[in-house]
Amino acid sequence: MSLKIKNVEFLHGENGLSKGDILIENGKIVGLNNEKEQTSFVPEREIDGENCLALPGLVNCHTHAGMVYTRGYADDKPLMTWLEDYIWPLEARITPEDIYWGTLLAISEMLASGTTTFTDMYFAMDKAGEAVEQSGIRAVLTWGLIGLQDNAIAQLEKTVDFAREWRGKANGRISTMLAPHAPYTCPPSFMDKVLQNAGQNNLPIHIHLAETREEMEQMEKEYGKSPVKWAFDIGVFEHKTLAAHCVHLNEEDIDILKEKQVGVAYNPQSNMKLASGVAPIVKLLEKGINVGFGTDGPGSNNSLDMFTEMKMGSFLQKVISKKSQNLPAGTVINLATTGGAEIIGLGSEIGSLQKGKKADIILLNLDKPHLTPVFDPLAHVVYSCRGSDVQTTIVDGSILYHKGEFYSLDVEKVKWEIRKRTERLTKSKK
Amino acid sequence: MSLKIKNVEFLHGENGLSKGDILIENGKIVGLNNEKEQTSFVPEREIDGENCLALPGLVNCHTHAGMVYTRGYADDKPLMTWLEDYIWPLEARITPEDIYWGTLLAISEMLASGTTTFTDMYFAMDKAGEAVEQSGIRAVLTWGLIGLQDNAIAQLEKTVDFAREWRGKANGRISTMLAPHAPYTCPPSFMDKVLQNAGQNNLPIHIHLAETREEMEQMEKEYGKSPVKWAFDIGVFEHKTLAAHCVHLNEEDIDILKEKQVGVAYNPQSNMKLASGVAPIVKLLEKGINVGFGTDGPGSNNSLDMFTEMKMGSFLQKVISKKSQNLPAGTVINLATTGGAEIIGLGSEIGSLQKGKKADIILLNLDKPHLTPVFDPLAHVVYSCRGSDVQTTIVDGSILYHKGEFYSLDVEKVKWEIRKRTERLTKSKK
Repeated sequence: MSLKIKNVEFLHGENGLSKGDILIENGKIVGLNNEKEQTSFVPEREIDGENCLALPGLVNCHTHAGMVYTRGYADDKPLMTWLEDYIWPLEARITPEDIYWGTLLAISEMLASGTTTFTDMYFAMDKAGEAVEQSGIRAVLTWGLIGLQDNAIAQLEKTVDFAREWRGKANGRISTMLAPHAPYTCPPSFMDKVLQNAGQNNLPIHIHLAETREEMEQMEKEYGKSPVKWAFDIGVFEHKTLAAHCVHLNEEDIDILKEKQVGVAYNPQSNMKLASGVAPIVKLLEKGINVGFGTDGPGSNNSLDMFTEMKMGSFLQKVISKKSQNLPAGTVINLATTGGAEIIGLGSEIGSLQKGKKADIILLNLDKPHLTPVFDPLAHVVYSCRGSDVQTTIVDGSILYHKGEFYSLDVEKVKWEIRKRTERLTKSKK
Repeated sequence: MSLKIKNVEFLHGENGLSKGDILIENGKIVGLNNEKEQTSFVPEREIDGENCLALPGLVNCHTHAGMVYTRGYADDKPLMTWLEDYIWPLEARITPEDIYWGTLLAISEMLASGTTTFTDMYFAMDKAGEAVEQSGIRAVLTWGLIGLQDNAIAQLEKTVDFAREWRGKANGRISTMLAPHAPYTCPPSFMDKVLQNAGQNNLPIHIHLAETREEMEQMEKEYGKSPVKWAFDIGVFEHKTLAAHCVHLNEEDIDILKEKQVGVAYNPQSNMKLASGVAPIVKLLEKGINVGFGTDGPGSNNSLDMFTEMKMGSFLQKVISKKSQNLPAGTVINLATTGGAEIIGLGSEIGSLQKGKKADIILLNLDKPHLTPVFDPLAHVVYSCRGSDVQTTIVDGSILYHKGEFYSLDVEKVKWEIRKRTERLTKSKK
């Protein structure tokens, strides 16, 4: 499939804007407004880019897509009530088929709001993989591991097999990691085995780290150290690591993250909604630590819209640091694209509009009252756009969403399946 | 005009949900699912409410609509650079015609995202009034007064004339207040005259109060007291007062606000973007102080979307107070509807779906991937909906926006005018 996006304003490198044509062939960007190449390029389809801004597809570095069933299920409740009376009973009933459909629903939402790659941590990831394969989106799939369960070792073996089998699938759109859930659910003896497998199979690590005050207290009590120091001491960071949250960090933790080049997934909305705290993103960026955005799961946000994530993520840093210049629009977009691509190990393939990179591209339609006038399109992306301003979403050179239509999935069927399954999952919630 | 919204789920009173028909006649709600009344009711139009949630129209208690020209004009800059190099030169060129068109653009954005009433503080408010009259929206118009200007008294006289002339216009959709801009721009001698006129003409007061740390320092230096205490001492609160921001409050300030029943407009996004701080909303509500939401102007947000305002306003309070149960969805919706109506003096007319109240109603279409499944529609409104989920906006019984179409204004013409005028206003910005 070859495609020309005609006469479009696009983000070229970091914060540079150009106007011209984007040429796509065999899933890659083959031309960016180069007259010479263009003469010999005969596209199979053209999209008119008038009034549009083209950006690299957004990269959601941390979510739990299959948790769509918990969206709005029990909000504004104390954490333990939420977990014990609602989430755990629901999750005890959830089947692999439920996860397949749940992931498809999450993918619909993400494609319609400009996310082209997501990093997922949940269960039955082979079913999530099927949803990714069919829908055309790009994903990093990581099967969550709870080290405290009786069958923990068997689960680990299963997820290693999954990670080996599925990486590179779907025309290379799927990659994998090992995902020990968190320090407080994975004791060191179990972590040893996880890391051994990570080393043997060259698999990165995806882990929740330093998310809540409760976690900090528990780790201090149990190990006398912070979650980051704990992870460092047992060798987690000898492997490429994606650490979700990193809300509570001391100076030593930050130095460790820097030294070991740990990637941090910033989930501002989830951290706000659950009252977890505010990750010190301004400081992390000053130190040169790689940061990307994550939405976290639909039960703790309750949306997978990266535009709200960007706006809230920037505003939160400004108000907490008492400096309105912090986390400016250009930086925020970089985190949501190149930054995210880097920390999930895809920095050379996606995250920017460059010749030779994968054609993961979104078009924003700026011809709207709430986006008028346009001075600085990048400021609009972060401060004024909504997910619903995404007109077109292209992954691997294929149009997956355009003007309200999904090209690779039957969204009515997906919504119907979710409603039907939700009834069963929540029948007697307590 | 009579209208039936058929078979719709609606918010009935505070947090109660019902399903049925909403009957509208002569601008008022005349029936809420009452079979008996319905038999004799022959509507001139019906709207099918399937998959929709009906809410009272949202009330934006504090904005500067005419400032749409500054949307994204100079973000992430230090305050004085922003003002001196960008905003003031632009505002020096702005004409009443510009404000007319700017207000129309802001109204387009607000109608399309579910706001049915807005409180505006800007200049040339007679032109804003024309925009309100023509567009069919409801508004509280308050002409900003700067007491430090040479012509301050003449301006005051002009705005008093405006306030007297325009209140009740547009079939009662317009009300007015006097708007001394802020304590640091309106010295007590000028305030005396403002308050004298407010008393003589029975006009409420709309003022910025305790917004920034700089204001607090300046007031402490100049008067040795807080802005709230200053306002109390000179008698502002003897008049019904709408105080925007109230970010920096001490215990005495809070007691004053409570005692004098001052209404507080909470502008979370503006306060975050400008790094002003976080208003103590949880505490104000505990004290029983009336609070509504405001978006502030499009230059410091940069959106007039009350849905993002609600979500961010709730999340910010949760994370700052370290308690996820604070500012729950139902409370947030009440602030954005009944609470807002109350503090702008329209509590008996709008803000809830009740027989006899004005028919200011919005319909949200919940049949979307990002809103599936639905457990608690109110949680969805605050945590998952976007402004773009508004399907229908009705003010005073008239449909003003429906399925992407504006019924009372030519939005293409409005956007074109704004683009043309923006060019002139920003020609040589420095």
